[in-house]
Amino acid sequence: MKTIGILGGMGPLATADLFRKIVLLTDAHSDNEHIRVYIDSNSAIPDRTAAILHGGPDPVPEMADALRHLETCGADCILMPCNTAHHFLPRLQAMTDIPFLSMLEATAKACAERFLGRTAGILATRGTLETGLYTQALERAGVVSLMPDETGKDALMKVIYDGVKAGRDLSPMAPALLDTLDRMRQQGAGYFILGCTELPLVRQMLNLPGDFIDPTAELAKAAIRFCGGTIKED
Amino acid sequence: MKTIGILGGMGPLATADLFRKIVLLTDAHSDNEHIRVYIDSNSAIPDRTAAILHGGPDPVPEMADALRHLETCGADCILMPCNTAHHFLPRLQAMTDIPFLSMLEATAKACAERFLGRTAGILATRGTLETGLYTQALERAGVVSLMPDETGKDALMKVIYDGVKAGRDLSPMAPALLDTLDRMRQQGAGYFILGCTELPLVRQMLNLPGDFIDPTAELAKAAIRFCGGTIKED
Repeated sequence: MKTIGILGGMGPLATADLFRKIVLLTDAHSDNEHIRVYIDSNSAIPDRTAAILHGGPDPVPEMADALRHLETCGADCILMPCNTAHHFLPRLQAMTDIPFLSMLEATAKACAERFLGRTAGILATRGTLETGLYTQALERAGVVSLMPDETGKDALMKVIYDGVKAGRDLSPMAPALLDTLDRMRQQGAGYFILGCTELPLVRQMLNLPGDFIDPTAELAKAAIRFCGGTIKED
Repeated sequence: MKTIGILGGMGPLATADLFRKIVLLTDAHSDNEHIRVYIDSNSAIPDRTAAILHGGPDPVPEMADALRHLETCGADCILMPCNTAHHFLPRLQAMTDIPFLSMLEATAKACAERFLGRTAGILATRGTLETGLYTQALERAGVVSLMPDETGKDALMKVIYDGVKAGRDLSPMAPALLDTLDRMRQQGAGYFILGCTELPLVRQMLNLPGDFIDPTAELAKAAIRFCGGTIKED
């Protein structure tokens, strides 16, 4: 079987979540039947949203440093458990012959297969939303989508940055988030894309109601297939 | 801050559990305040218990291969999220100048600090139990311990290998495990060491009652301290 390299640290808990999902979604009956995984959880990578929207430090040099480690280990594909980081994927892909598997494309494919004809509500950071990363990937797959309003974007940034990334209790942030989902449903969203890798953790912690696509799980499944493994059925 | 190398894959879910515990136990308020972690989850490492007890293939060459990757990345310490693997620690430590942090010693220290004067019940694989790895580490820390009987060892091997490592439902294995804990309590065990890295997962999945020491969490805390980080208080 081929091996996986995870260019991580964006954030660290999301990186652990992707690794765990790869293990749990692999149909394996002993340690030796699993896929070999290399991880560099590089906590020095500057914030992606800050770089895109506010002229913050370029994250690519630290991402490239992690990429070099994964190359040296011999990874056969590279995964980035950060949706916003995909804005920088073309620059990184130009540095290596190892293919990056895109979380956005894996997600768009899953949306088209599972929720054909329904409108996707995109939940993500301002960096991901304002670059149109998801909108474009979904359009290419024939999926109609809508974004949260400004109040909704604020609620999402708060739960991602002041909640999960800050390691704080999320419950005070729950009402604003639930209101955001309700407003998006009223505008036509039939299901939601958890389009920031902190959001599958938020969904689990707050037990959010509704139909969701988890890009972390979709990326894990794409990687298992790429490596020649079998997906474990529920 | 210093960096952590995880020599993993023994098993993969236990490796993900250690990584997650390092993240959750670090007092950090943004991605950049976390410790950089390198992981090689090498699923090709032969079974440690089989090597110790039944003349199975030597796991050290594949462990050394992962060690070389972690060295190349620049790890400042090495962690092995597998108690049984600690039998091979002296051979691996002789290959590198990077210090291994011992899960057994971190656990023995925690037992001495938290449960002074009470007898520890050791729950582990036959490989760990029969090499006396824990008994010796505990003795050095002044901790009195006892081991499961043969029926109890069988129940533990079953839940570890046929349950967690095989990715199967654990509930059919719960009664034999609970009986084992009861018999150990009758013999004087005041608390239990979850001395196989699959067992903290078993404890969580089956919601086992009692006082426990989780060696994975103790190793995570030892590593955070080694790297210059701060432990997050509950």
